[in-house]
Amino acid sequence: MKRIRSARRLQSAVRSARSKGESVGFVPTMGFLHEGHLSLVRRARRDNDVVVASIFVNPLQFGPGEDFESYPRDLARDRRLLRSEGVDFVYEPAAADLYPREFATRVVVDGLDQALCGTRRPGHFAGVTTIVTKLLNAAGPDRLYLGQKDFQQAVILTRMVEDLDFAVKVVVCPTVREADGLAMSSRNSYLTTEERAFAPELFRALSKVRKLVQAGEIKTAASAVKRVESLLKDGPGRIDYIEILSREDLGRVRKLSGKLVLAVAYYLGKARLIDNVWIQAPKGS
Amino acid sequence: MKRIRSARRLQSAVRSARSKGESVGFVPTMGFLHEGHLSLVRRARRDNDVVVASIFVNPLQFGPGEDFESYPRDLARDRRLLRSEGVDFVYEPAAADLYPREFATRVVVDGLDQALCGTRRPGHFAGVTTIVTKLLNAAGPDRLYLGQKDFQQAVILTRMVEDLDFAVKVVVCPTVREADGLAMSSRNSYLTTEERAFAPELFRALSKVRKLVQAGEIKTAASAVKRVESLLKDGPGRIDYIEILSREDLGRVRKLSGKLVLAVAYYLGKARLIDNVWIQAPKGS
Repeated sequence: MKRIRSARRLQSAVRSARSKGESVGFVPTMGFLHEGHLSLVRRARRDNDVVVASIFVNPLQFGPGEDFESYPRDLARDRRLLRSEGVDFVYEPAAADLYPREFATRVVVDGLDQALCGTRRPGHFAGVTTIVTKLLNAAGPDRLYLGQKDFQQAVILTRMVEDLDFAVKVVVCPTVREADGLAMSSRNSYLTTEERAFAPELFRALSKVRKLVQAGEIKTAASAVKRVESLLKDGPGRIDYIEILSREDLGRVRKLSGKLVLAVAYYLGKARLIDNVWIQAPKGS
Repeated sequence: MKRIRSARRLQSAVRSARSKGESVGFVPTMGFLHEGHLSLVRRARRDNDVVVASIFVNPLQFGPGEDFESYPRDLARDRRLLRSEGVDFVYEPAAADLYPREFATRVVVDGLDQALCGTRRPGHFAGVTTIVTKLLNAAGPDRLYLGQKDFQQAVILTRMVEDLDFAVKVVVCPTVREADGLAMSSRNSYLTTEERAFAPELFRALSKVRKLVQAGEIKTAASAVKRVESLLKDGPGRIDYIEILSREDLGRVRKLSGKLVLAVAYYLGKARLIDNVWIQAPKGS
């Protein structure tokens, strides 16, 4: 596995692979890797001749008061994990190189950020779309691997890739969970033992309501949201949002039908946890 | 010369050239080609194994009340010209393909649009940076050729290419002029005989003031602007702006020194003409 710090070098490495007709898969990460990241890497490894992963905690996608400074980092361990998964190139750019003083460009996807994390973290997704544009230009992949856990991010990046004619296919992989159902996240490391014990309730609540919606027992968005609320209300943390939306365009729905996503964000100690489940609602009566 | 309508097809054509180790030059145009465009094509032809040109009148960069509908078009002639210059691929996308209903992404360069055409044509440069991002992703070139006549556009696109880590070198080529000095522009076709007779005064005024600045006879931005104004004040049209700025960051200057650009925009009949000259001002005393 080769470590690469500059976009130019990564471009020439990928270009030379491509000139041999090889396909390239790319997994962007903020490091502090867990099984969720590694599932993306393994999928990329299966699908492509060359696998590029990036490790970069992107300051642009953190708002004031968020956890940019304290975001967990363990580069040595990350490299070991990526090497053991057969990654060919790990891209580790420096913030000063990616964002020099004169940096002035933003990539923005309008509309899809008017729900879920988009309304709670202003500027977050513009930070994500801007860094991913840079990373795609540096890695020049055929396939981009994203996790379902960050579902809004996946929807927005898919829109961006289509809109900007990137020659890349977006592959969204299922959320990887701990044995008790908690969605894997680098931010789980913030949790105390007590908080960690409560954390699986998020997925349990989502799963319960998914079942009720799919059984036709819950028919409106309002009652679905209310039911998740009541399941979480005695927890030690604080609900940021619970929303049930159309899965394709993240639009609001009133009566539940078709392809939906039920998503939650929850403040638990120092962490803000997010999770979501996909729901196929029965045809309305 | 091969005509290509879709980004996917252009990408695979370029990819196959690249797999043979060939270099690719790209010239984006809005068609109705003149010697200015062709000078870019010839330069691209000299520098690269493969030349891609695009013809697309981009609705996104026209404001309300601007000349999108009436912008001159002559696709058959454009194709003949490009073929005779040895262009390999001409990319002729359809607006409905580039901007489908669900299109939602913008690429924006902040700051550099706070002068010149940027303040007069709100949204214009976001339209330019967005379409050029799409065109670069479709054509995947090594080199991008732009004209100095659209100087602010060249500065903004150069910033964008650097900021977003595009693997492309921007080549800015000198403005091509008619025998009497008028900068070539597709919009010159709007001019009546009388207007056309006056139009070279723009470049004459800029050239005269450049001479005075370089001779140290004009020392401040205010007096340079005033002098151009007085040279144009009896014309049949209307000044939109006259500005003298730092060439590197388009920043305002008071005393004149270093690398400058002196630029004008002028309404003449149905046309809005722009032109600029570069000035190397003597060291201040």
